[in-house]
Amino acid sequence: MAHSVVDMKWLGHPVTSLPTPAFLVDHDKVAKNCNDMLNKCKQLGIKLRAQVKTHKTVEGADLQTGGTRRCIVTSTLHEAEMYANNGFEDILYGYPLIPFHLQRCYDLRSKLQQFHVMVNNCDIVTTLNKTEPPAGKRWSAFIKVDAGNNRAGVCWQNTQAVVDMACQLSDGPHTEFQGLYVHCGNSYSAGNLEQVKTVRDLNVERALHLTQELQQRGITCKNVGIGSTPSCSQEVSTRMSSLTEIHPGNYIFYDSQQESLGSCSMDDIAVRVMTRVVSHFPDRGQILIDCGFAALTKQGYGKISIPGYAHFQDNPNLKLVDMTQELGKVEAVHGKLDYSQYPIGSILYIYPFHSCATAAMYPVYYVHHNNCITEKWYPTRGW
Amino acid sequence: MAHSVVDMKWLGHPVTSLPTPAFLVDHDKVAKNCNDMLNKCKQLGIKLRAQVKTHKTVEGADLQTGGTRRCIVTSTLHEAEMYANNGFEDILYGYPLIPFHLQRCYDLRSKLQQFHVMVNNCDIVTTLNKTEPPAGKRWSAFIKVDAGNNRAGVCWQNTQAVVDMACQLSDGPHTEFQGLYVHCGNSYSAGNLEQVKTVRDLNVERALHLTQELQQRGITCKNVGIGSTPSCSQEVSTRMSSLTEIHPGNYIFYDSQQESLGSCSMDDIAVRVMTRVVSHFPDRGQILIDCGFAALTKQGYGKISIPGYAHFQDNPNLKLVDMTQELGKVEAVHGKLDYSQYPIGSILYIYPFHSCATAAMYPVYYVHHNNCITEKWYPTRGW
Repeated sequence: MAHSVVDMKWLGHPVTSLPTPAFLVDHDKVAKNCNDMLNKCKQLGIKLRAQVKTHKTVEGADLQTGGTRRCIVTSTLHEAEMYANNGFEDILYGYPLIPFHLQRCYDLRSKLQQFHVMVNNCDIVTTLNKTEPPAGKRWSAFIKVDAGNNRAGVCWQNTQAVVDMACQLSDGPHTEFQGLYVHCGNSYSAGNLEQVKTVRDLNVERALHLTQELQQRGITCKNVGIGSTPSCSQEVSTRMSSLTEIHPGNYIFYDSQQESLGSCSMDDIAVRVMTRVVSHFPDRGQILIDCGFAALTKQGYGKISIPGYAHFQDNPNLKLVDMTQELGKVEAVHGKLDYSQYPIGSILYIYPFHSCATAAMYPVYYVHHNNCITEKWYPTRGW
Repeated sequence: MAHSVVDMKWLGHPVTSLPTPAFLVDHDKVAKNCNDMLNKCKQLGIKLRAQVKTHKTVEGADLQTGGTRRCIVTSTLHEAEMYANNGFEDILYGYPLIPFHLQRCYDLRSKLQQFHVMVNNCDIVTTLNKTEPPAGKRWSAFIKVDAGNNRAGVCWQNTQAVVDMACQLSDGPHTEFQGLYVHCGNSYSAGNLEQVKTVRDLNVERALHLTQELQQRGITCKNVGIGSTPSCSQEVSTRMSSLTEIHPGNYIFYDSQQESLGSCSMDDIAVRVMTRVVSHFPDRGQILIDCGFAALTKQGYGKISIPGYAHFQDNPNLKLVDMTQELGKVEAVHGKLDYSQYPIGSILYIYPFHSCATAAMYPVYYVHHNNCITEKWYPTRGW
């Protein structure tokens, strides 16, 4: 969100001068993660429609789009509006459309040269064709296809429903059929890198199969895309060049969940929560840190390679065993804590399990180059 | 947080006109919850030092203090600063103090007639006595005592440490001993109302025992308090009138966790997440709603009386089985879903498991009287 007050506080200071907890974004890593994904798409000859929900900032989306401010997907109307107000174009509101959303979509359609909605069923297509769009424009819609994720979308096996919706969108007075959108969220349930690839390839095949089915009926998909960070962070498959776009999002930051899925190395993770030690309790083998659930969220427990909620950078023997709102309890994974290593006030860095969730807890992200704060990013929020 | 832009949007409208997800605050219930706690303290002849971290708003703290804007406890320095900037007095920064906090505490001590810190160990007391306070003032400190909660505080059995700290605070050049602060967070682990009372009474006895130990050594506690919403929502004990204050916080809103502990009835819960149905999936017996973890948090799974994350108001047969960032998956607890009852776009209301956590996800709270939006509260956030 463009911040109305010019506030230089902390710029040029070392990150270690910040109050804690603080959300740190390593600019070089973010830039590398963004460039790598852009290069991958270039190599495949397809577009990157970056999902922006992980960070919800103008600056992050600038890096994701290589500065073009074109071709993004949002998870909320509020995000779409924020990006539209900041000069972004070709925005997909990537959420199951319901009639209640139409007034705000009308305003977005008025404002943007390219604005797309995502439809989930025939009824909303009928509604779109009964709803006058802004003069000289049409409602451009992607059909959301469920290719095995079991969340939103028309089941990929239900060819007839997809064909019916595509026909209605192509032939309707107010609509334009844009193509197919598949979110391969089931890649998050994969056990390892090979399984992620298998899930990804299945999603690609199912999307392309449906595209062909439509083509055989004379309906052209202008765009066909699949996405999820695990799917898109792997070595590409040649079949992916038959898509027109991919739409991962979390890759801008990555996190320890992505590391465990083989999407990235720990060193690629661009975000950390900085925290300070606030108390020692040798009697029960604990230290307290100023990172509670308000600073990290309670996601990830039991889902990482050590017990607890998160990995501590350079401190593999620390585990975060519990959190209340503003306090975290830290213990040794093995043996006893050496308290002399963690004096009160000393700083620790935590890799979030799920950076989309953790980022949402912060009003500001402190962006740094090496140890120096270079920018502050203000994410938007709300709906 | 006082909001700089006068924004009348939604005021006077029915809550059902709001975009979803939305965080609704029932003004009558909040007022009743606040008055009940104030009356309980009046009856006991003690002060209510309301914890404000649940809501972080000026308006909520106005109701908690009965309009006096005096005697609150905060969980962050940022909250303390926000309240100090809005005319509140007698603020306790209720967090383990570390040297890094001292500059901001200095500014708060300058600004306020009564500002207290909370100390956890001897070292920080020594540091306080080496740190010049604002002219004509002292550092007023509560000793945090751990009476069984096993989080922050000096162990209640460690009388000598408490005595040493109290002496140092009483005799030091820059400090003033305010008294003892006990958070009975272990009341949350109690299985039922009777166990909550047992935990509460034990915390009270331990606090009063230490007070007496200090008194026998000629050290007077100006204030002795215990707190937690489960402990303070029960029928009072006569022994509580020997305290000087209690400091619950969550009671302003309550939630389904509190209901399960016997702190309140479901009807006392003043906050709900309003959500809309966005998709039907009869093949897998699900509906999707626009309440994902970004609107509720993932706290509470498996901890309520039905499976899943939360209770739906007036729909005891619905369970929230999974959430991604912006979508929730809802199924029937028993039997099949009757989809005709939940048309796409229809509204459902969710009782949060932990209202402190859920409230923190929202940039604005919509306060309503019956079904009409009467106020918007803007919580502060950050550290």
